[in-house]
Formats: sequence, structure tokens, C-alpha cells
Amino acid sequence: MYNHTPAMVLALDIGGTKSFVGLCRPDGTVLAVRRIENRFDGAAAYWSALLDVVDELLTEKVGGKSLFHMAGIGFGGPIGRDGRLRSLHVGGWDGIDLSGDIGRRFGLRSTLGNDGNVAALGELTYGAGRGLDSIVYLTVSTGIGGGVIEQGEPLLGQRGLAAELGHIALYPDGPECSCGGRGCLEALASGTAIGRRLREALAAEGASQEALAAFPGAKEVFAAAAEGCPTARRVLDACLSDLARGLASIFNVFDPPVMVLGGGVPMAGDALFVPLRREMVPHVMRFRRGDVDLRPAQLGEYSVLLGAVALAMQA
Amino acid sequence: MYNHTPAMVLALDIGGTKSFVGLCRPDGTVLAVRRIENRFDGAAAYWSALLDVVDELLTEKVGGKSLFHMAGIGFGGPIGRDGRLRSLHVGGWDGIDLSGDIGRRFGLRSTLGNDGNVAALGELTYGAGRGLDSIVYLTVSTGIGGGVIEQGEPLLGQRGLAAELGHIALYPDGPECSCGGRGCLEALASGTAIGRRLREALAAEGASQEALAAFPGAKEVFAAAAEGCPTARRVLDACLSDLARGLASIFNVFDPPVMVLGGGVPMAGDALFVPLRREMVPHVMRFRRGDVDLRPAQLGEYSVLLGAVALAMQA
Repeated sequence: MYNHTPAMVLALDIGGTKSFVGLCRPDGTVLAVRRIENRFDGAAAYWSALLDVVDELLTEKVGGKSLFHMAGIGFGGPIGRDGRLRSLHVGGWDGIDLSGDIGRRFGLRSTLGNDGNVAALGELTYGAGRGLDSIVYLTVSTGIGGGVIEQGEPLLGQRGLAAELGHIALYPDGPECSCGGRGCLEALASGTAIGRRLREALAAEGASQEALAAFPGAKEVFAAAAEGCPTARRVLDACLSDLARGLASIFNVFDPPVMVLGGGVPMAGDALFVPLRREMVPHVMRFRRGDVDLRPAQLGEYSVLLGAVALAMQA
Repeated sequence: MYNHTPAMVLALDIGGTKSFVGLCRPDGTVLAVRRIENRFDGAAAYWSALLDVVDELLTEKVGGKSLFHMAGIGFGGPIGRDGRLRSLHVGGWDGIDLSGDIGRRFGLRSTLGNDGNVAALGELTYGAGRGLDSIVYLTVSTGIGGGVIEQGEPLLGQRGLAAELGHIALYPDGPECSCGGRGCLEALASGTAIGRRLREALAAEGASQEALAAFPGAKEVFAAAAEGCPTARRVLDACLSDLARGLASIFNVFDPPVMVLGGGVPMAGDALFVPLRREMVPHVMRFRRGDVDLRPAQLGEYSVLLGAVALAMQA
């Protein structure tokens, strides 16, 4: 008897602080998913634990590997065109062969992409860019990363390191950036930066260390601004103005049909998007201002996971 | 008798201030070329004059049109994906059908591109990027324009308006830009901007109108700096620092194998490129600094003309 099993995809979103392992359908339905916090000492232990979760999930949910046709992997760091992993935040990925390990252990052919590009593909295929063939996607979270897809093709660059959209310079003497530059978009408007800028402003006003500790990131800054704190309002306005100027430059360079913002900071919703659109437009070339379409991501924390599904389906 | 005529290409570089009409071989050899200054009242008269030059050149050099297989056109303004011309600097191009007119009058199939993209293709095919499949090209001249080719494909954007590399914002309160924005790369480091910034600096030092008139553009500023004028040196350093920061952002976004600078300003040679490379590197992401390859264009004033040849050959 021939068994008509629906095609399924194993999807991995490997991030610096957490990962998701999912079983999904090609239409983007998530059938089962596991979230794994990175509490491991080094990449090898982390990766080994992720493989064990894959094993458990396959055993538990589908009783084996034979239902699976392919796997997709979104990796949280730059990937060279040679396939070499280069994560900046977590060491030790260098010698690990993700696709090879998945193939050997589960007999699956897998496709690998940088998480920014993969999230862009996820939103384009199943989310905010559905029906289009091009997208500029930015994740505004701990850092600012991104992905660009132009007429179905990801922008990779010579070394696979393109679309570092968080590393455009907005001020000559801005704050130091983790990349070694100065005044980058990421150093001014990531969740981390928004929190830091409020803490700096409060410290300048003489706030206690205890008071500063109440503002670790963007979420608390949005909340304080909404409650009427004038310092939080002022800092947030400055951060959004910088983000807007960065987005306008990116718009001028790519002329995308849609720009999609994902990650933690855009969870603020209208409190982010309304001022952001207003501040962005004056920096866009005059005759193109009517073309700006800035949208929140629709896939929540699964932009990368579902992008990995789409990546596997393309292969 | 069968006549083995070598394939030839009619190439047009249509610019706001001047145009070139050339007869070229597919290998990039320019067999004959005419330069036409734009002294016309409106686009229709200018285009009509260009068509007459094409006619003369064909009649004079090859005695007719039958030797020609194709034409390529680089146009100095944005071109919508619908083929509509949108030059910002010269009005009246809107209703003109360049390819249609060339087809009707000379029986040639022609291909049309924005001059930034076409120049990028020219340098990639015959110039500074020969042997590569990707390039970021900037023309630094009256304005700053550009073109990006990634793995053989030009970056066009949704409306054909991508790669406006002169319109990334480097300062929140920088000088007004012709695009309607503020602090754009073009408003800080184009030839026009370099001249303006020196005139502003000299005016602030109390220079006469006559003295200011000696510095219409970048060429005179480079000359004054070379002769030891401290104001010119200071202004030029500031302009090159801004240009460097813009180039670093563009590098981070595109990860190109090579960045090529054409147009008038890069004619300054080492006086431009030596400080520019030095200033650019600290703004590039730390682990990518060794990958920066910034080169002068090799095709001089024929980047667009020869790009038009390559464009025709692709079609």
C-alpha cells in the first residue's frame, strides 16, 4: 500500500540566545515546535543539544524520519559563500557542518541561510510580503540585522555578508558600535541601544543605579514614554528619528515594494510605526515619498523558522 | 558574395549636460564617437538633435544601418519599470519613447537602462571590474549616482529606482539635498558640494565674491589644497571623510567584491583615493576591513557609453 504522507519540513532557527526547532508543512503551518534557550558552554554543546531536540521531536511526533523530505536552517550569523559559519556573538561555530550533521544523523538534505535573509524569505512567503517578489526586512531587537530579496533572489554579496542593514552610519561621532564602527543604526536604535540611551539620559539627570536598572531595553522605554515620563519620551523620539533616517536611506538604495520590521522592538506596534512613518518620509527622495510601505512582520517569533521552511522548499 | 561584417553596436549616453553617440564593437572598442552638449530648449529638441547625430554618424562611418545589429542606451535619470523616463534635472522626457524612435528611424532593436546601472555594467564588462560578476559603482560628479550589479543582475528595485547611492543620510541636520532630503551623501561630497563647502568656508572667513568665484567645483578645491591653502585642505578633508563614511555604509550593505568610483571628482586620483581608503576602513565592520577594494573607474568618460554596448550585447 502506498502511503500518501504529506510533505513535511524540518525547520531550525539557530539564534545566539535561543533557537527553535519545528516540524512544518510547506504551506507554513507549524505542526510542532520546541524552543531551546542557549545555556550551553560553546557552540558544539549547543548544537549537540539542538540535534537531540530534533531527534526527540521526530521520534515523538512522526515516529521516524521517513516522512521528511528536507530541512531548512536559519543561522544567527554571517555565512560565507563557502558555507563557513562566522557568528560574531557565539564562538566555536567555525568548524561545525550543520547541513552535514543533519544529513548524517537524519538522512535529510538541508539548506542553510543567514537568519536575516531567511526571515526576509519567511515574511515574503508566508507573512507581511505575501504575493510580492521583493522585500527589505529588518529585525530590530538586541541588534539590528536584515535581509533583502530582490525579484526572488536574496542579496548575498561577494562573501555572503551583504544586507548588514544595521551598520549604516548615521552620525560621524555617534556611539561606538559592536561592529567596530561608530554611529551605526544598530548603536542608535536597536532594543539594546534604546535602553542604553534612556539610562544615559537618566544618569545625566542624576538617577540612581537602581532607577536605571528598571530600563534594560526598549519595552520598558516605550512603557515609560506611554506613562508620560518626559525623558523617556524625548529619548524615544530621538531613537525613532534615527531609525527613520536609516530606513529612509535603505529605501532610497533598494526601492523595495515593502519594508518589513520584525524582532522585539516593533512589537510596540503603533507607538513605533506611527511616528516612524512620519519621521521617515521627509528623508525619502521627494518624488518617491508616496511609495513608502513600512509594515510590521506578521510571523512574530517564527519569521526565521518559517523562512527556513521556504528555503527548504526552494531547494 | 556573403559579406562578413563585424557586429557593431550603436551606443548612446544621454546626460543632462552632454551626451555621447558612439559606434562600438562588442569587445568595447570605440570606433567613432560624437559628443553633443545640451544647449537645447527641452528634451524633445535635444533628443531630435541626438537622433540627427546618430543619422550622420551612420551615414558617414558605415554608409547605412545594415551593419548594425543592436543599440544600447544609457539614460541620465530614473527609468520606471514601465520604461517611463523620469529625469529630475531636465523636463519633458516623460512622453519620449527612446527605443521606439531608434527602432522606427534606424531599424535597430535597442535596450535602455539608467546611466548609473549602465555605467556599472560598463566598468564590470570592460573596465575596473573586468572578470568579476558583481560591482558597486558610484559616479561622483555634479551629483552622486550609482549602480549595483549582483551576480550579473542589476539591482533595479520595485519601480526601477534602486541604487540611489547618493541619497543616504549622513547627518541629521546636514545641508539640504536636491532630492528634498537633508545631509545626503550627494549634498556633502559631490563635485558641486565640495565647491559649495569651500565657498561657504571662505565666505565665513570674509573672502570676496570674486575670490569665491574661483572655486566652482571639486577640481579647483583639490588644486588649492595641493598648493597649501589650509581652508581648502580642511574642507576637502571633511568632504572626503563624509564620502568615506558613506562608502563604508554602502560596503556593509552590499558586500561587493569591488567598489568603483567614476565621474569627475575621482579624476583627482591618489589625492582622492589615498585619504578615502584610509578614512573608509574604520567605518567598515571590523572583520570585513581586509575585504575593501576601492578602485577608480577605467573607462573615463565612456563608462556609460560602453555600458550601453554591454547592455545591447546582453539583450
